[in-house]
Amino acid sequence: MTSQQPPLWRRALAELIGTCLLVAVVVGSGIAAQQLSPNDVGLQLLENSTATVLGLTVLILVFGPVSGGHFNPVVSAADWFLGRRHGTGLNLTELGTYAVAQVAGAIGGSVLANVMFDLGTSISTKDRTTPGHLVAEAVATAGLVLLIFSLARTNRGLLAAPAVGAYIGAAYWFTSSTSFANPAVTIGRIFTDTFAGIAPVSVPGFILAQIAGAALGLGLLLALFPAAGSAADDVVVPHRAKETA
Amino acid sequence: MTSQQPPLWRRALAELIGTCLLVAVVVGSGIAAQQLSPNDVGLQLLENSTATVLGLTVLILVFGPVSGGHFNPVVSAADWFLGRRHGTGLNLTELGTYAVAQVAGAIGGSVLANVMFDLGTSISTKDRTTPGHLVAEAVATAGLVLLIFSLARTNRGLLAAPAVGAYIGAAYWFTSSTSFANPAVTIGRIFTDTFAGIAPVSVPGFILAQIAGAALGLGLLLALFPAAGSAADDVVVPHRAKETA
Amino acid sequence: MTSQQPPLWRRALAELIGTCLLVAVVVGSGIAAQQLSPNDVGLQLLENSTATVLGLTVLILVFGPVSGGHFNPVVSAADWFLGRRHGTGLNLTELGTYAVAQVAGAIGGSVLANVMFDLGTSISTKDRTTPGHLVAEAVATAGLVLLIFSLARTNRGLLAAPAVGAYIGAAYWFTSSTSFANPAVTIGRIFTDTFAGIAPVSVPGFILAQIAGAALGLGLLLALFPAAGSAADDVVVPHRAKETA
Amino acid sequence: MTSQQPPLWRRALAELIGTCLLVAVVVGSGIAAQQLSPNDVGLQLLENSTATVLGLTVLILVFGPVSGGHFNPVVSAADWFLGRRHGTGLNLTELGTYAVAQVAGAIGGSVLANVMFDLGTSISTKDRTTPGHLVAEAVATAGLVLLIFSLARTNRGLLAAPAVGAYIGAAYWFTSSTSFANPAVTIGRIFTDTFAGIAPVSVPGFILAQIAGAALGLGLLLALFPAAGSAADDVVVPHRAKETA
Repeated sequence: MTSQQPPLWRRALAELIGTCLLVAVVVGSGIAAQQLSPNDVGLQLLENSTATVLGLTVLILVFGPVSGGHFNPVVSAADWFLGRRHGTGLNLTELGTYAVAQVAGAIGGSVLANVMFDLGTSISTKDRTTPGHLVAEAVATAGLVLLIFSLARTNRGLLAAPAVGAYIGAAYWFTSSTSFANPAVTIGRIFTDTFAGIAPVSVPGFILAQIAGAALGLGLLLALFPAAGSAADDVVVPHRAKETA
Repeated sequence: MTSQQPPLWRRALAELIGTCLLVAVVVGSGIAAQQLSPNDVGLQLLENSTATVLGLTVLILVFGPVSGGHFNPVVSAADWFLGRRHGTGLNLTELGTYAVAQVAGAIGGSVLANVMFDLGTSISTKDRTTPGHLVAEAVATAGLVLLIFSLARTNRGLLAAPAVGAYIGAAYWFTSSTSFANPAVTIGRIFTDTFAGIAPVSVPGFILAQIAGAALGLGLLLALFPAAGSAADDVVVPHRAKETA
Repeated sequence: MTSQQPPLWRRALAELIGTCLLVAVVVGSGIAAQQLSPNDVGLQLLENSTATVLGLTVLILVFGPVSGGHFNPVVSAADWFLGRRHGTGLNLTELGTYAVAQVAGAIGGSVLANVMFDLGTSISTKDRTTPGHLVAEAVATAGLVLLIFSLARTNRGLLAAPAVGAYIGAAYWFTSSTSFANPAVTIGRIFTDTFAGIAPVSVPGFILAQIAGAALGLGLLLALFPAAGSAADDVVVPHRAKETA
Repeated sequence: MTSQQPPLWRRALAELIGTCLLVAVVVGSGIAAQQLSPNDVGLQLLENSTATVLGLTVLILVFGPVSGGHFNPVVSAADWFLGRRHGTGLNLTELGTYAVAQVAGAIGGSVLANVMFDLGTSISTKDRTTPGHLVAEAVATAGLVLLIFSLARTNRGLLAAPAVGAYIGAAYWFTSSTSFANPAVTIGRIFTDTFAGIAPVSVPGFILAQIAGAALGLGLLLALFPAAGSAADDVVVPHRAKETA
């Protein structure tokens, strides 16, 4: 990042509000789906995932120019890890600030969704832990990390907003866990006892699986895009596309 | 805006027809959904929101080059407010003209939808006022204003059509009110006693909440994009993307 | 058009195959929807319209560079009409050839869909004529013509594929007729007695309404984009966007 | 391809992981759909196809810059066939390597999906052979080949990711077979006795139909884009769009 980037407090504000709205989208659309389509859980998930695809895309568009639009501690951590090797990315102070803002925003998002639907805030009782779900969280997070940083390393970062939205939309369905893939969002979703909630007892396993998945994603990234690792300017797609695609 | 912009009457015509078609999309698809999927309100809303995402995107593409494609008095008012500070945007005469055209178009859109479905026009009896709905309208409108003007201030206005469409599609679901977020459309939706209608008694609260939300959105905009406020040419995303993304 | 355009027989082949596949998408997905979701007509239409949005977008991408990807006699006729005034567009021989290819392709598309679903080809018995449906066809066709030529006249023709797909997807829902908006497709859909079929008795009214709608769309186009009419190079959106958006 | 392309082992790894994830998306979302929407097969297919549109688009974006993102032996074979005539494309060694990686990845994708959903891997018992299904596979594969290579030959290869995703999404619905259109994926889908599975007895017919369809698609391609065949630089769309669209 260059000296022209916004001050840290502003970037943290963007991460906080963006993550808040992301969780409000996930939790709020889950509440609406559960209330309006009570007889088909699949239809509820389709409504929930469709809203998330659209909302997440828009949030990255809005907040990306300020903070990068991470909304996710493992993405911020991967940014620090990769940048440490190449002299770019977040430093540890920034990483810590981002993570705090993300978690605080995520909790606020659950509360906001509950308020909009005239519901009180309470702790979720939805236990989600199965072996398959933990595998699913690792796969989902690996894919997310691979996606974000492969786009960045091939200079197609401008595609990140719709691509990340689309990826999460697919991952709602192809993973058994509906793809949390985000420790901050996982913690935020504790605070709503509705469709998108997660019981505290399931959270540590989910977060560990997400961290393992992020590591796997970084490994795949370095195997598939090694040259891009040492030279962010490397051309993988035609040169003009690097700037505008 | 420059001297090359179309004359006001033509821009007003674009706002009138565009808002008319927007409400025709919202109301018409609501009628179709209610008639064709009578047993699941969530499915009705999914059909209604999907049609709106697609239709709103197209309408901004078509009418944007003529009038800006606001279709919404709070967007026009925010344009005036921001422009007043920096020597751009609508003036008060234009703002008033836009708002009249938008409201007239919105009413016409309800009537058109009713005619297409062989229904008479009558006043909606659907009371939508709850505390949560008013919070939801404020949140939805704040997000809309933040989206539109953050794109404009980062020179990504060409993304507004799909981004606003996507945003409204998400907001149908994550807000309890299904996100009217538009005083003209709110008034227009009085004139149909169908799925997308709103009883007159609910309208003042909705509009007040929308105005409050627009103010909140402007506050967030100025907090997150302060430099862009004084220099619309500021580079937040790579320079080439400013022109073509 | 320039001397570099493909010979007429190749363009006619593109219109024939493209329209064939378009009707195969509309009819085939309608058959699948009717068979797989027998209990909710709205869900059938959602499946049908979703497939059409995606398929139509792709077909315009593929065949557009060869023939323009009209697949629709009123679009070809509007191209001739507008071009007659400004020295561009189809001539009458080309228009006739396009229309014949489109109608033949459309009929073939119904037959192909019937074959893929192991159904015989028979004449539809689905009477669709109501006053509201005829208004709907006029509105749908006016919007389609306005969309296509407003994009062309603002040098954003490269957006036509996703924009036309999105428009038709919205029009399936906001018009009571599900938006045929195309005389060739209307004729083609006679030849399948399934979800997307139309009885011959309803066809003349639909086609007349479509022609009236095309005229209305041209009128709106000329009212909103008059300068673009005499100078296709006019800048309405920023100059770079004219070429790449 | 140029000397700057990644070594074959890395490209094979990309094809293996990409095809694995593609089948995991198809099979996994099919399992989720079947479990969550047990009462409407059409809704299951809508959930399955929506996830596939989004997931396939993302996978081509991620792996395309490494290997081309074929994930499909008939696409690789067509690339070899067309390149043989014009001095580009895969050679036979590369083609064989790609195909092995694709088939291995596809089988792995079924196993991965089964694991994520806590299901054992078993052979599908779903017989899918009908005359209509075989016609459908030929049509679906012809369209896929025509799409991919018409984009490449008009220098719009950067659109391949969303366009192929959209195409497959439409083809799920307009073909009776739900459009496998891919021998590797067809083989991979043997290894799951769930929604997206296919019994071994149906596989040879499907693959033969896919090969016939690929040949048909190549024939259409050469009929419609003959000049592009001998000069990949030919301009079909405006020159700037060749590089950035």
